[in-house]
Amino acid sequence: MSATQQAVLESFSADWRDFPVLNRPVKSRVHSDSVEVEWDDDRVSEYHFLWLRDNCPCPLCVHPGTREQVFEIIDVPEDLQAEAVELSGDDLHIRWQDGHESVYGAGWLRAHSYDEASRDERLHEQRTVRVWKTDLAIPRFDYQAVMSNEQSLLQWLLAVRDTGLALMTGMPTSEDILEQVAHRISFIRESNFGSLFEVRTKVEAVNSNAYTSLQLPPHTDLPTRELQPGLQFLHCLVNDATGGESTFVDGFAIAQTIREQFPEDFTLLTQVPVSFRNKAPQSDYRSLGPIIGLDARGEISEIRLANWLRAPFDLSSGDMTAFYRAYRRFFALTRDPAFIVSHRLAAGEMWCFDNRRTMHARNAFDQASGMRHLRGCYMDRDELLSRILVLQRSR
Amino acid sequence: MSATQQAVLESFSADWRDFPVLNRPVKSRVHSDSVEVEWDDDRVSEYHFLWLRDNCPCPLCVHPGTREQVFEIIDVPEDLQAEAVELSGDDLHIRWQDGHESVYGAGWLRAHSYDEASRDERLHEQRTVRVWKTDLAIPRFDYQAVMSNEQSLLQWLLAVRDTGLALMTGMPTSEDILEQVAHRISFIRESNFGSLFEVRTKVEAVNSNAYTSLQLPPHTDLPTRELQPGLQFLHCLVNDATGGESTFVDGFAIAQTIREQFPEDFTLLTQVPVSFRNKAPQSDYRSLGPIIGLDARGEISEIRLANWLRAPFDLSSGDMTAFYRAYRRFFALTRDPAFIVSHRLAAGEMWCFDNRRTMHARNAFDQASGMRHLRGCYMDRDELLSRILVLQRSR
Repeated sequence: MSATQQAVLESFSADWRDFPVLNRPVKSRVHSDSVEVEWDDDRVSEYHFLWLRDNCPCPLCVHPGTREQVFEIIDVPEDLQAEAVELSGDDLHIRWQDGHESVYGAGWLRAHSYDEASRDERLHEQRTVRVWKTDLAIPRFDYQAVMSNEQSLLQWLLAVRDTGLALMTGMPTSEDILEQVAHRISFIRESNFGSLFEVRTKVEAVNSNAYTSLQLPPHTDLPTRELQPGLQFLHCLVNDATGGESTFVDGFAIAQTIREQFPEDFTLLTQVPVSFRNKAPQSDYRSLGPIIGLDARGEISEIRLANWLRAPFDLSSGDMTAFYRAYRRFFALTRDPAFIVSHRLAAGEMWCFDNRRTMHARNAFDQASGMRHLRGCYMDRDELLSRILVLQRSR
Repeated sequence: MSATQQAVLESFSADWRDFPVLNRPVKSRVHSDSVEVEWDDDRVSEYHFLWLRDNCPCPLCVHPGTREQVFEIIDVPEDLQAEAVELSGDDLHIRWQDGHESVYGAGWLRAHSYDEASRDERLHEQRTVRVWKTDLAIPRFDYQAVMSNEQSLLQWLLAVRDTGLALMTGMPTSEDILEQVAHRISFIRESNFGSLFEVRTKVEAVNSNAYTSLQLPPHTDLPTRELQPGLQFLHCLVNDATGGESTFVDGFAIAQTIREQFPEDFTLLTQVPVSFRNKAPQSDYRSLGPIIGLDARGEISEIRLANWLRAPFDLSSGDMTAFYRAYRRFFALTRDPAFIVSHRLAAGEMWCFDNRRTMHARNAFDQASGMRHLRGCYMDRDELLSRILVLQRSR
């Protein structure tokens, strides 16, 4: 490799993050289709030739401006061979059979190792959910601090990600504030109820029970959509009516209880797809998904449930009784005081919660007793997680 | 039941659709926890008491304004009994042990039967995907017709749903037209690239290869998001540059070929989650999902793939070689001329395609040869399907 080429490589990262060298590679061994690297903490990581070639970070393989790959792995032979493999300083250097050269920094290499120990470590880091019951001390955040300080912003977002519920206090009660706070994270997710929605009684509610003064049982919003909104914001502008307390249950805590105590019900709730429908004069939304969603790793990652939006269950006749048992079990636990957290939102307060986890409910309120006006909007988990990662970069 | 109550029930449907009586119930038999109905075509459908009670359409159980349920199934005993069951005219009448009365119209009841024959029938109706290869005659639709006529609009939307690719012609080339056409369906889905995006070369592309003049291999857009956008619109305002043809492959056709010919690869591509990342100075999006997605029924429902947005594969060491084989197989088929459809978009033409199925690619173009300007936006499948259902209601 020429000195110039070397200099280019060193100045360039295919990522927007740095990968500090936390462990040093001490030895490498070449196998028929992989390199094994031994680290200074005795961990041994195997890297396949195809994987290494695929992840070559050089400016010929990765566009220096966008930092996105331009190389396509199918353009090398399936049995690609390395002609030379060398540990030099903290870098792994490889010259491939076609003459192409790749250099991998030890920090990057270790961070992407796929030996079992490294994979377990990463999985462990990703488990950030903290489930809660009625004794939750609702995380509280001050509007001014969040708006003016990146650390406060990050703490608020981590609470929303990990606890799934946070209260913001000290907010002005003007109508434009909700958008400003949401934009502190990212763009708002529009729905058929608009980009911003107003929760107050409508004279003629034709598209949702939310726009009546009825009690609403614990639910997630828009289960009728393929992807339920990740975050829900509810900013209280006026609350002079009697009643209408907000109550919450942690759907993940309920799901975990069912997983532990009623494993057959858990299996049904994770495997049987339920259809949800929101039908109105101008829309007809339908979704199909299980009430408890699991992610690619088998971890509880989503609750999908609004009792009044379910379509008739469509299961084999032989499964119907068992499924009603499981469904009623879940629903009964949402009424169990052991799970319920309650707070009456005052003007100038705002909820932000994980709509795919934290089920919210509303007690009936007395329309005659006074005004009640909440303004709400949605955002996806993607925006939350992206914002957290960017904020963590600059720490 | 009083005559008044009867009149209320008859005037009221819990749905916004009608359910015409296509078959008549001829006999009912009561079991310990269900009713069996025999139809005039000899079909026999079992309806469990809990299921029937849950779906009572009376105005006490379903809010007459929103047509959403207010009854909660947990408020009746698990072993709920019927005191009286009667077929009367085309309706099934039930008086429950607590005195509540329910009436189910034969049209509704038959449409929601869950005996195996009825379920198979519904499943069959839902299979509307038509896969295609290079000999596809791209469905074409005229802008004026779609904008002025509901039948033309419906035909266009059905083509997008079932073929996953449609060309609109005869469009004005002013900048506001794309939004007008999109709003003919519903609202636009915003992303971190904005609500509308402009595809033309940027001087300094830092967040996507799409904004370079490079060739882009077949891909889906935003695989880095948990839910990839369902529809993509690309409206051509100017195309005076040499090159830059649009090419498409049907990802479902490729997935089906792999399912038939290389079942082991198919299993890996549907089961191994791949991480995609879009990293830029102000965002850091990451997703985790299989390259071929299956729906709750096991049918191919999604392709997730942009080669340049993949994170390094993170699999067990023992699976890496097999997964590269499967990945290369998929990628090789996207280059196979047997699958490729190509067309050079002219000014005044617009693509609308299923971004989670129809992979699109772009040949490199020569920036020096002239201007090229496409304007694009996204929408979710939910909006498409809802619009189709509403249009079909009024037929």
